Amino acid sequence: MDLRSDFPGVRDWHYLDSAATAQKPQAVIDAIARAYGEDYATVHRGVYARSANMTLAYEAARRKVALFVNARSEAEIVYVRGATEGINLVAQCWAGTQLEAGDRILLSTLEHHSNIVPWQIAAEKVGAAIDVVPLTVDHRIDLDAMQAMITPRHRMVALAHVSNVLGSVLDCRRAADIAHSGGAKILIDGCQAVPRLGVDVQALDCDFYVFSAHKLYGPTGIGVLWARTELLDAMPPYQGGGSMIDKVTFEKTTYAPPPTRFEAGTPHIVGVVGLAAAIDYVEGIGLDAIHAHECALVGRARAALESLNSVRLFGPEDSAGILSFEVEGVHPHDVGTILDETGVAIRAGHHCAQPLMRHLGVEATARASFGIYSDQSDVDALVEGLERVRKIFG
Amino acid sequence: MDLRSDFPGVRDWHYLDSAATAQKPQAVIDAIARAYGEDYATVHRGVYARSANMTLAYEAARRKVALFVNARSEAEIVYVRGATEGINLVAQCWAGTQLEAGDRILLSTLEHHSNIVPWQIAAEKVGAAIDVVPLTVDHRIDLDAMQAMITPRHRMVALAHVSNVLGSVLDCRRAADIAHSGGAKILIDGCQAVPRLGVDVQALDCDFYVFSAHKLYGPTGIGVLWARTELLDAMPPYQGGGSMIDKVTFEKTTYAPPPTRFEAGTPHIVGVVGLAAAIDYVEGIGLDAIHAHECALVGRARAALESLNSVRLFGPEDSAGILSFEVEGVHPHDVGTILDETGVAIRAGHHCAQPLMRHLGVEATARASFGIYSDQSDVDALVEGLERVRKIFG
Repeated sequence: MDLRSDFPGVRDWHYLDSAATAQKPQAVIDAIARAYGEDYATVHRGVYARSANMTLAYEAARRKVALFVNARSEAEIVYVRGATEGINLVAQCWAGTQLEAGDRILLSTLEHHSNIVPWQIAAEKVGAAIDVVPLTVDHRIDLDAMQAMITPRHRMVALAHVSNVLGSVLDCRRAADIAHSGGAKILIDGCQAVPRLGVDVQALDCDFYVFSAHKLYGPTGIGVLWARTELLDAMPPYQGGGSMIDKVTFEKTTYAPPPTRFEAGTPHIVGVVGLAAAIDYVEGIGLDAIHAHECALVGRARAALESLNSVRLFGPEDSAGILSFEVEGVHPHDVGTILDETGVAIRAGHHCAQPLMRHLGVEATARASFGIYSDQSDVDALVEGLERVRKIFG
Repeated sequence: MDLRSDFPGVRDWHYLDSAATAQKPQAVIDAIARAYGEDYATVHRGVYARSANMTLAYEAARRKVALFVNARSEAEIVYVRGATEGINLVAQCWAGTQLEAGDRILLSTLEHHSNIVPWQIAAEKVGAAIDVVPLTVDHRIDLDAMQAMITPRHRMVALAHVSNVLGSVLDCRRAADIAHSGGAKILIDGCQAVPRLGVDVQALDCDFYVFSAHKLYGPTGIGVLWARTELLDAMPPYQGGGSMIDKVTFEKTTYAPPPTRFEAGTPHIVGVVGLAAAIDYVEGIGLDAIHAHECALVGRARAALESLNSVRLFGPEDSAGILSFEVEGVHPHDVGTILDETGVAIRAGHHCAQPLMRHLGVEATARASFGIYSDQSDVDALVEGLERVRKIFG
């Protein structure tokens, strides 16, 4: 794949921080500029043609998202700010109303803070407890352990599809089967999966699935919560405001059906248009091709980094698009800073996964993550940069 | 002012729906395209230069917003999706934790649903009650009535600075004084005020102030909650996730100080950049000039519409930028549709203010709202269009 020229933010830069946020293809930027320019209008309310057209685009995008994850209907697609808000929405409106004191929530050691803290807040409100599925020695969520841990008091399971630190891919279907065998619902944090793997929520058999557009080569400030219709139907509103109501009086307000019920206020209209353009772009390449491309790059990067004997790699051999490592005796931030001087952008830190850092026995890791536009030159530049790190730190 | 050529979404169109959402100047669109292109990176986390630069832009925007509303410090500025989310945040995190059963919340008859429904949800949770300040005969919030109504059980007052239907301007300072005299806090919904009037939160002496960027010639999906530091300090988090934490363990999580505590997850980075560009654009013209320009247009439009004897006008003489009316015997939607055919875009409906519609004794109104780019040609086209409406409906 040679897509580099499609990305004005990449060019001759070695951008290896796509797991933080992906660069945008010109097609997405153009769609955004057009939507803020000659096409701009509000949605759902205007009696004039341009507003009707924008509403059509906005709702066509919902159908596109539904097809993209193989939802049963576009009514299962709720627009949110991002995966974080999607998880908070489920934690508040589902767990916060369905769970009772003594119920339990099951997470894993490798979760991102966004898939930990919302559940802690919800659990505290209702008096529920949280249990943590451990990892296997090769840093996957240990589904055998999960199977042994789950009880009928576990009402909710929330797991990352792909780890943002390790790239470990979850067997979602097996996790869902285990969750359902105990009567629990399962939410999958798909932030790192959706840009890298074809996702079919029906095949995965999960109950909730969330992702962010900005990691999928789309705009910031927009994301998706997919949920089964019957679950959305039973949930109270998240935020109150315009659009999400049926009828408002000061005595009593009634609410619209999903997904509208969960979309109060003027939405991020142009974010939705940009998300649709991003899905078009990604589907034009195909997620199988993207996954194969990233796996090949990660494989070569792992092999090259393993040959540098002061580098320690984390995560399984078949990690998807994401590679965490440390250079012995050098703080990851110093690794990142020196690499930056050579035109290589990685991320160094706890990656919003402090419990995982404690499990790995480190404060932080260096992380290289790949995208559609990544190529062998990025791997080579990373390796050269790490050789420079070793020289400097002798 | 001749700014029409700055707006690719306006050109020879008579766009009179700026109160729904404002068109964007090319300068804002360009800033957005650049931020998604050669400047794109995440904030707060990258160890590489471009991410550090984006973080600087993101935090410089916060200082710009703080200066724009004369906040005491940028730590008082919380980025939210829009005014609706800002009100929900305060309703949940302040009212939801500070109010007790028997406490009361004071709203007004003319509030937008976004300044009604969040308070209903919060009131129901804590067992508080809602009272409604009536309007004067010329459709302003009746502050004399408010003064007579307020009691020490009123802990929160929430009012629109400028009515989205009528354009009525609130005397915020007097409303704040009345609220504070009873010991209540006051939130001002500034959605329609911020694009039309200079706002100084210290002079208004309010406690919370919210607005949306998309009505201020900026991007969708981003807005601002301003609040006094001591109020933010005392509030629990709104959403859990990355960035808003201090330390996360499965046993106990501690949170960052405001405003970070309220900004979970990857923010709408480019929305913030676009908001800063919009403020630059608006300040380049000056809010006094904008207000004078819109008042002149509304004055001429009122005079012209009054001379059409089948048109009934709502709202006070000195309404700010917004003019609601009805054409006798013609449904507002039909008015809107016929105007659309003549290249004039207005809004027809309940404007997310159903209680106000009941007060006015109508199902809906037609609404013309003005912006920076509006001019006499728009007023003329509106009048000609309404003459056509009268001809068609005989």
